[in-house]
Amino acid sequence: MQNETIPNQSGKPAAAPAHPVTDAVRHVMEVSKRGCDELLIESEWLAKLAKSAATGVPLRIKLGFDPTAPDIHIGHTVVLNKMRQLQDLGHTVIFLIGDFTSMIGDPSGRNVTRPPLTREQIEANAQTYYRQASMVLDPQRTEIRYNSEWSDPLGARGIIQLAAKYTVARMLERDDFTKRYKGGVPISLHELLYPLMQGYDSVALKSDLELGGTDQKFNLLVGRELQKEYGQEPQCILTMPILEGLDGVQKMSKSKGNYVGISEAPNDMFGKLMSISDVLMWRYYILLSFRSLADIAALKQEVAGGLNPRDAKVQLAQEIVARFHSQDAAEKALADFNHRAKGGVPDDIPEVKLSGAPLAIAQLLKQANLAPSTSEANRNIEQGGVKIDGATVSDKGLKVEAGSCVIQVGKRRFAKVELS
Amino acid sequence: MQNETIPNQSGKPAAAPAHPVTDAVRHVMEVSKRGCDELLIESEWLAKLAKSAATGVPLRIKLGFDPTAPDIHIGHTVVLNKMRQLQDLGHTVIFLIGDFTSMIGDPSGRNVTRPPLTREQIEANAQTYYRQASMVLDPQRTEIRYNSEWSDPLGARGIIQLAAKYTVARMLERDDFTKRYKGGVPISLHELLYPLMQGYDSVALKSDLELGGTDQKFNLLVGRELQKEYGQEPQCILTMPILEGLDGVQKMSKSKGNYVGISEAPNDMFGKLMSISDVLMWRYYILLSFRSLADIAALKQEVAGGLNPRDAKVQLAQEIVARFHSQDAAEKALADFNHRAKGGVPDDIPEVKLSGAPLAIAQLLKQANLAPSTSEANRNIEQGGVKIDGATVSDKGLKVEAGSCVIQVGKRRFAKVELS
Repeated sequence: MQNETIPNQSGKPAAAPAHPVTDAVRHVMEVSKRGCDELLIESEWLAKLAKSAATGVPLRIKLGFDPTAPDIHIGHTVVLNKMRQLQDLGHTVIFLIGDFTSMIGDPSGRNVTRPPLTREQIEANAQTYYRQASMVLDPQRTEIRYNSEWSDPLGARGIIQLAAKYTVARMLERDDFTKRYKGGVPISLHELLYPLMQGYDSVALKSDLELGGTDQKFNLLVGRELQKEYGQEPQCILTMPILEGLDGVQKMSKSKGNYVGISEAPNDMFGKLMSISDVLMWRYYILLSFRSLADIAALKQEVAGGLNPRDAKVQLAQEIVARFHSQDAAEKALADFNHRAKGGVPDDIPEVKLSGAPLAIAQLLKQANLAPSTSEANRNIEQGGVKIDGATVSDKGLKVEAGSCVIQVGKRRFAKVELS
Repeated sequence: MQNETIPNQSGKPAAAPAHPVTDAVRHVMEVSKRGCDELLIESEWLAKLAKSAATGVPLRIKLGFDPTAPDIHIGHTVVLNKMRQLQDLGHTVIFLIGDFTSMIGDPSGRNVTRPPLTREQIEANAQTYYRQASMVLDPQRTEIRYNSEWSDPLGARGIIQLAAKYTVARMLERDDFTKRYKGGVPISLHELLYPLMQGYDSVALKSDLELGGTDQKFNLLVGRELQKEYGQEPQCILTMPILEGLDGVQKMSKSKGNYVGISEAPNDMFGKLMSISDVLMWRYYILLSFRSLADIAALKQEVAGGLNPRDAKVQLAQEIVARFHSQDAAEKALADFNHRAKGGVPDDIPEVKLSGAPLAIAQLLKQANLAPSTSEANRNIEQGGVKIDGATVSDKGLKVEAGSCVIQVGKRRFAKVELS
């Protein structure tokens, strides 16, 4: 195990006593940076990790949530995954619910999608969110906090004192503010206060690292600056990319239909993940899998050496389904997927013995219990929903001859018929 | 008495029932506009005055003070005079002490002249200020308020909700903000909140008119806008010019030495006022005198017809001295002034009979009780502070011959000496 001291930003060895950068520390750094968009300031984060390793004091890692959007998909889990990975390495993860600002909403009334929420709505949303997040985070080791705890006690004076810590010009440097200000699109004064409130959360939590999406970079940096103003060691910030949707092009989003919800049924989840491109698969491996980078590199080698990429994709899909359902569900989803791939007939379909050949198809469907009535059976045929040995039946007048065949109605109803 | 309805801003008669504009209403309008820099919106103020006259409900007139500068001069009284004139016409004057923001001070720490004040300091400053202001206002009919009364209860959320009522762009339109923002001089976010807090005072007070110096126009307009946001009839604003100092060029200011403090001794006050130019005198008449505009016009006619402008100036100086001291003090100040003009010797100086001529000057000063000792007497001579019949004594060895003379030491000590 090789030790070295941490260089400071100028590249020279730091004058202050530093803690050794062990292999273990380097490992946490590797985990931190995996798939990330930006880690600022890397040398500071390394120093924090080294100090934590040397002193045994875990680092405090903050992730804030707006309790207004309780239904999450795997795109949302990219950041949660990073939290879980750092949690597994012994650090303290803080699940911060931004109830203070949510209870205010957008008081300018311009943003109709952001009405003020009641205490009860926030609590319900937070519970729903946390229940879903708990499929990724380890609930036993997660600190849940609400920012009203320290925001309300600031009072009117505290807010003004907080506002004195930041300049108008620096706030207007935020991309969207710059565009709106230059474009003459009104910015209400309170909008400049929200990033401050979010930054003050970092002060209150004495956060060492704040995670967020790439679009949160500015806000995370405000927290860093405010901590300095309050005499604290500033937090590092780690931004994660926005996950591409199943199409591999647009960002994953419910409204675009290119998402995998974390509450979706195992078969749907599995099937959607199997539909992604081979290129996107490796991206998902980095951002969604908990397998080590070494493992993933080895798998990539195997694919280069001849392994069917489909097999690598199966492993990914199984890992994700297992995470949000169970290992059994993952096995079952794989089996069902394979069946459907082989013509879509499951293994365990009922066998039915019938007589009276040649038998009218509607009669046959009714007697095989595949339709409640002959008229319903005819409707199914009209809709193209009936297959005999995989071939769609289009003629309601069809008579089925004696023999053995597999009959399917709709997507899920099957029967193996012995007709004599 | 001619009545008319109030035209609205488009110039057409208002559709809503209006109140008659009587001569009395027109008189209040004339008093309001006297010497003012701007009255906005004049038609709205006329409507308020007419309504008040018709309903007997007095209007609420707000003047805010920063309780950090307790020593006031006649320049500060220009706005107070307007308050008093409107108070005398039956309206309610609110003396508002901005203790909320003063207790916060400048939390950015950039402005060393604005440290946070304690409750006790603010109370003491406010008392000092109010005691001085009471020489102009009628204390019996003045409402004294502290803005912490409604600012503190806003709490953290209330401040954010308030900040939602105003846009960044509109706030940055304030002249000094524009210059600083364009010039890259930092503006702390809290500085944008202070005009809002001041504006919210108008909401809390349901103010009908806010007075201020010309430099306050922007802040007064914020109050107007906020009242609209809170569904109130907006206040009108009336700005008064900054008074020129005794030099008639620069604004009156303690640091420039061109001021008249309202606590100065009657003779000093009188003498300073008599030193102003004839042109500046008419300006002071408009802004400082309580005489009617008709009176002042008549006086101006007299001067044009041959009256010595000095006599008009005497009337002004007497009015001001009488306001801050008494009518007696004003008479006395005039008498003393006239004496000094005639050689500077007051009427009622002590008469002293001495013998031993020729007498050394230092001995004479000591025996006439004009110096406590001969050494002190010599010091006075060295400093050029001793005069015999108006001529400065420069020779400490001078022997005074027998006879009668007036001896002066410093500015104020005189004796008529009979030496034998």
